[in-house]
Amino acid sequence: MDLRTAVAAQRTFSLSLFDQLRCDGLDEPGVSRDPYGPGEQRAHATMEAAGRDLGLEIAHDTAANLYMTLPGRDRSAPRVVIGSHLDSVPHGGNFDGAAGVVAGLAAVAALQRLGVQPACDIVVMGIRAEESIWFQVSYIGSRGALGTLPDRALEARRVDTGRSLADHIRDCGGDPDALLARRRHLDPASLRAYLELHIEQAPSLVEAGRPVAICTGIPGNFRYPDMRIEGSSDHVGLPRRFRRDAALAGAEFATALDAVWADHEMRGIPMACTIGRFHTDAGAHGLTIVPGTFHLSLDVRAYDAAVLAALDRQVDAIIAGIEQRRGVRFHRGTKAQAAIGLVDPAIRARLCAMAKFLDISVLDIGSPASHDAAAFSACGVPMGMIFVRNENGSHNPHEAMRIDDFLSGTSLLTAWLVDAIG
Amino acid sequence: MDLRTAVAAQRTFSLSLFDQLRCDGLDEPGVSRDPYGPGEQRAHATMEAAGRDLGLEIAHDTAANLYMTLPGRDRSAPRVVIGSHLDSVPHGGNFDGAAGVVAGLAAVAALQRLGVQPACDIVVMGIRAEESIWFQVSYIGSRGALGTLPDRALEARRVDTGRSLADHIRDCGGDPDALLARRRHLDPASLRAYLELHIEQAPSLVEAGRPVAICTGIPGNFRYPDMRIEGSSDHVGLPRRFRRDAALAGAEFATALDAVWADHEMRGIPMACTIGRFHTDAGAHGLTIVPGTFHLSLDVRAYDAAVLAALDRQVDAIIAGIEQRRGVRFHRGTKAQAAIGLVDPAIRARLCAMAKFLDISVLDIGSPASHDAAAFSACGVPMGMIFVRNENGSHNPHEAMRIDDFLSGTSLLTAWLVDAIG
Repeated sequence: MDLRTAVAAQRTFSLSLFDQLRCDGLDEPGVSRDPYGPGEQRAHATMEAAGRDLGLEIAHDTAANLYMTLPGRDRSAPRVVIGSHLDSVPHGGNFDGAAGVVAGLAAVAALQRLGVQPACDIVVMGIRAEESIWFQVSYIGSRGALGTLPDRALEARRVDTGRSLADHIRDCGGDPDALLARRRHLDPASLRAYLELHIEQAPSLVEAGRPVAICTGIPGNFRYPDMRIEGSSDHVGLPRRFRRDAALAGAEFATALDAVWADHEMRGIPMACTIGRFHTDAGAHGLTIVPGTFHLSLDVRAYDAAVLAALDRQVDAIIAGIEQRRGVRFHRGTKAQAAIGLVDPAIRARLCAMAKFLDISVLDIGSPASHDAAAFSACGVPMGMIFVRNENGSHNPHEAMRIDDFLSGTSLLTAWLVDAIG
Repeated sequence: MDLRTAVAAQRTFSLSLFDQLRCDGLDEPGVSRDPYGPGEQRAHATMEAAGRDLGLEIAHDTAANLYMTLPGRDRSAPRVVIGSHLDSVPHGGNFDGAAGVVAGLAAVAALQRLGVQPACDIVVMGIRAEESIWFQVSYIGSRGALGTLPDRALEARRVDTGRSLADHIRDCGGDPDALLARRRHLDPASLRAYLELHIEQAPSLVEAGRPVAICTGIPGNFRYPDMRIEGSSDHVGLPRRFRRDAALAGAEFATALDAVWADHEMRGIPMACTIGRFHTDAGAHGLTIVPGTFHLSLDVRAYDAAVLAALDRQVDAIIAGIEQRRGVRFHRGTKAQAAIGLVDPAIRARLCAMAKFLDISVLDIGSPASHDAAAFSACGVPMGMIFVRNENGSHNPHEAMRIDDFLSGTSLLTAWLVDAIG
């Protein structure tokens, strides 16, 4: 039996797992797999059951991540981890994250069907809490496993429940005290590679008419989840020269950053800038009141550390200018940062070779979004990523990944495993 | 006894009325005299009692406005109305509106003290519901009295209670059916003049070091209380060229309008533009989501009909450009408009002459804010306004009008009455 046939045989297995995951998370419109909450818990239970059915060894760590291991010929050899996250944004789609875990299981099942016992353990990892919209902390599960969760992350409160990450982790059988002590479950030195398959979140593959992309890098970012601008709340009759309009300061900030991005775009330097929350104070705003307070969140990302550092300085300069011109004050609040995720050149080269071998037409793209893979790369684990074509974007109920594209991506993953450790 | 002494004798009367009004409306921080609600009701009761104490004739109309009349020598001669509103914004100050009604009573009391019976009736009017933040409708009380309340205004809902204006009016003893039929209480032909004293809402008098200003005009406006921008809610990873960011469209709109205002300011053409509500969707926004929907309110005002019409066209052009560039759609919602309030040149000239006579140093200023006086002017009633110096702006708990400045303004009002109908 050849590799493509072995992977094609996982079509029904994969479709039924996706169906079950959709039922688990259903929260019309779309699915909500809330991290360290009922939605994510059900997804973990479904994946764990599927892993058991394949005869894999099941384990959990103090961050309540799920590990499903196909034993290798040498149990002590550095392992390969194939992972992605099982949580979603509220009312998100069914594939963002979960597709990578399903692909891991399907690849392992294909190896079993091919009769391949790998040289080392292959660990399929169901990662917790990747979507930072909930706790406003990046890579909670993967950094928990690697012992690199930042100080105070456990105090972060989930935006909907208001409860701390520590409490949420405890609810799901994890051990926040162990995390606080940075006891790691995964020693980077014990890992040969980390691979992640993920749906593409932008329409580049749709636009290019190709099923699969090989990742060239994951952006690093800096974030201000809770910025506040303080001006002066005044009567609608106040002349312009006296005003200290906090919302207008916010508007100028947003348009200035958009201009910075447009300039980078024109010069071909990849970056992104997103102001997701952008609002006057619901308790105080009104038709005839000059806004005295304004709130916003900021996420800036780039693939090059020097570009990111320059952007950081540009944000500061823009703020200083607006403060001076408009008599307002920016309170930046907490700053979160995530390192750039470098793709291992050898992994990327072998993935490209395998794509050629399998006659899969691939595209090279930088991931516009963050992924757990960056947390592994930050610890020195050689990392690679595969993107699968997906229509209508992600983080919304209309994600649309075709099963044939998914199986093409999974074939590429399986071929890499056979090539590297078969 | 001279006029200034007669007005100075109203110091305690005025201070105690202001104290009582503050107690009536206390809602820390500041006062809330909610229109057609308990806050405004208590203020009306206090003023009515004070009017009765002065021996004035008390009446109400179908809009529940309060009329306190000092009979003139000729009861059938066209009357003079001295009015202002008794409602406030939520957590506003004690003087915005109420100072004008207290001034009316103090002026009448001074005339009584001087032994002047005027040629015609002087009606002190406590006007309902001027603050449009509550029902998002301008000049409810005054336009109700004049029979010019627009169609469907009675269906407007108070933003906090969600109940209709009709229901609120009925609660306070008014008759919404009569208002709907446009039965007017005040026939413009029966009015000789409308005068209003109001605190200044901008710091022009503070800046100029003068106690009182004479109004040169009240701006007209157009408003979109509930504008919505529709873009596309997308993942933070979506490249710039694919984005249809509704919040960024809002930011561009706000900064473009601010540039229009800056340009008018430079050219010395008075106008104002306020975006009071400006916000992403609280139920859907988040750190890593490109905003798909954005909400804002818009208030644009000017003193010249041609300027206002040109601004209206500029808003449309700005919207069209943003829609085209950013792939978003503006839904303007309801449009409200208020006519420009022209000050009667003869009244203004006599006020200036009286200020000179009384040795009160006055400033000429265009009212930056809207006032009930504009509703009278729109019906052809000769109108004039007096502004009193006030620190810290209005529509906030920190309004600070000094009693000496108030008495200067009231002296000017009283002198005008003696001069015109004494």
